[in-house]
Amino acid sequence: MSGTGKAPATRPDPKALLAPLADDLKRVDAAYHRALASESPHVRKLVEHAALFRGKQLRPALVILAGRACGRETDAHVVVGAIVEMIHTATLLHDDVLDHATTRRNLPSINALHGNEVPILLGDFIYAQAFALANTLEDRTAAIHLAATTRRLCTGEIDQNCNRGRFDLSYPEYLRIIEDKTASLYAASARLGAIYAGAPAEQVTALEEYGRQLGIAFQIIDDCLDLAGDERSVGKSLGTDLSERKMTLPLLRLLERVPAATGAKVRQMLADGAVGDPRAALRAIVDFAPDVASAQATAEQFVRGARGHAERLPPGAARQTLLDLADFVLERDR
Amino acid sequence: MSGTGKAPATRPDPKALLAPLADDLKRVDAAYHRALASESPHVRKLVEHAALFRGKQLRPALVILAGRACGRETDAHVVVGAIVEMIHTATLLHDDVLDHATTRRNLPSINALHGNEVPILLGDFIYAQAFALANTLEDRTAAIHLAATTRRLCTGEIDQNCNRGRFDLSYPEYLRIIEDKTASLYAASARLGAIYAGAPAEQVTALEEYGRQLGIAFQIIDDCLDLAGDERSVGKSLGTDLSERKMTLPLLRLLERVPAATGAKVRQMLADGAVGDPRAALRAIVDFAPDVASAQATAEQFVRGARGHAERLPPGAARQTLLDLADFVLERDR
Repeated sequence: MSGTGKAPATRPDPKALLAPLADDLKRVDAAYHRALASESPHVRKLVEHAALFRGKQLRPALVILAGRACGRETDAHVVVGAIVEMIHTATLLHDDVLDHATTRRNLPSINALHGNEVPILLGDFIYAQAFALANTLEDRTAAIHLAATTRRLCTGEIDQNCNRGRFDLSYPEYLRIIEDKTASLYAASARLGAIYAGAPAEQVTALEEYGRQLGIAFQIIDDCLDLAGDERSVGKSLGTDLSERKMTLPLLRLLERVPAATGAKVRQMLADGAVGDPRAALRAIVDFAPDVASAQATAEQFVRGARGHAERLPPGAARQTLLDLADFVLERDR
Repeated sequence: MSGTGKAPATRPDPKALLAPLADDLKRVDAAYHRALASESPHVRKLVEHAALFRGKQLRPALVILAGRACGRETDAHVVVGAIVEMIHTATLLHDDVLDHATTRRNLPSINALHGNEVPILLGDFIYAQAFALANTLEDRTAAIHLAATTRRLCTGEIDQNCNRGRFDLSYPEYLRIIEDKTASLYAASARLGAIYAGAPAEQVTALEEYGRQLGIAFQIIDDCLDLAGDERSVGKSLGTDLSERKMTLPLLRLLERVPAATGAKVRQMLADGAVGDPRAALRAIVDFAPDVASAQATAEQFVRGARGHAERLPPGAARQTLLDLADFVLERDR
């Protein structure tokens, strides 16, 4: 993808950004694997395979950074980090079934290897174990909050699916869907990090808003990558939003921008389904680079909003990492 | 299905059996619908459709009967009843995707109407809301116990799926799978009914064992119905276990009983996949009536076990209904 035209000389590396959290993220990882241990060799094998897809651990990192930014990190932060990562992994497994994805992080997706049964059931197993783990915490806030968040994630996914092929979806409708399906888990991670640090209400809200806006930006960039990203660097099947006829922000902007006749051609192609690469089919009708740039500019606005909320936190290393993470969202190519 | 040869003059009617619980089951139903209320019109429509598939409310009935048999019924029993019904509904939705079922309770299944996306997501939504509802209870026992039970349900489903086509599955392996995937939720329902009644440990165990053995019997009869039931009275697609190459008890008994050459033919037919009705294809190779009868006899043993545990409870109307319910499992044709 072309970036926003203001990429720094050295591309921000999430690994370097999160290096100060390495020990805690290792503890999150250990808690994650302890929670998913199973007597069933089938379950064990699948959990191991699913673990290969795990990415940057952004959500657990948010829990820990939020705690640190509020001046207190506890064992509960590690547990909450593992829970949010489990919920995220379960949604990925079910997403891959929904998207008929064949690769994830450059590896065969579980549905490509085992059909649809296994990722559905493994996702359910991981959800159940996430709630079981939440119930091991003395304080019930995480259990209550994350059940409600999972409900929102599912509502967003249902609304997105039921709106497939609705190319007149409005921006507010689009925004509500991505808030539910993506941003709510970022917001919950940051919020819970603050709550388990015993932070005052103002910091809890600042972190929740930071997470929400970061999540929205993240999803918009995801939309842009699906349309304009490179499959090898992104590491998963792309163009699936087009072939699944999902409304994304660049597509929304494109349909607002182009003349009616071009828009009709695009809608027709999407409704019929492209032969071969859907991105190439779209490019054959219209140059969508301006629409990707427009969506990126919107993501940039949300990143600015996220940064503004983070700046209300006490200054220090954790706050700086939150600010850098926000910038990273814009520059990422995977 | 032919029954066990000792059917009473009047077939037990679950509705009549559960009539003394009608008011409580209405309260369960109201709690269920309150919990699944949603701002999303898409979610609302799907929840309504899924509600049409709800059956006999056996699991909530167990919660309430267990409470009554132990001499105390509380508001928590109604909430726990709604939660176990929600978990059950979510598993049904995901099961229909796994089984490629086209009908359920004589209605088009949700996957037949909407594809696989919607039942997966609606199931996830209902799971999440079940855990959210569990977190509204002051006492955390149900939340803890039902997350662990959901984990077992999923483990059983995963093991069943990963063992598809393994026609040398042993009886103990088969039994462990159906305990996990079916009996564990019956056991949890009865156990929680006792716990929320403040029952002594002996009654809690008696009810858990009653539920476990009832659930095992229920699943074995389900296996028999899939092979020998009538689609119209059962109200769902049958023969799916055969076409999905799942090991069931009658099939296990058949492969133990028939000569090696017949067994080889059966395995070959199952491995290749039958053209048309898989039950007719199996019947063309071998008469499986003795194997269905043998599996039914095993179910009868479990019903006897369940009754034995129920008889350890204080005598009264609730205990009698538990005993009658156990008999009903054997006589049901749907």
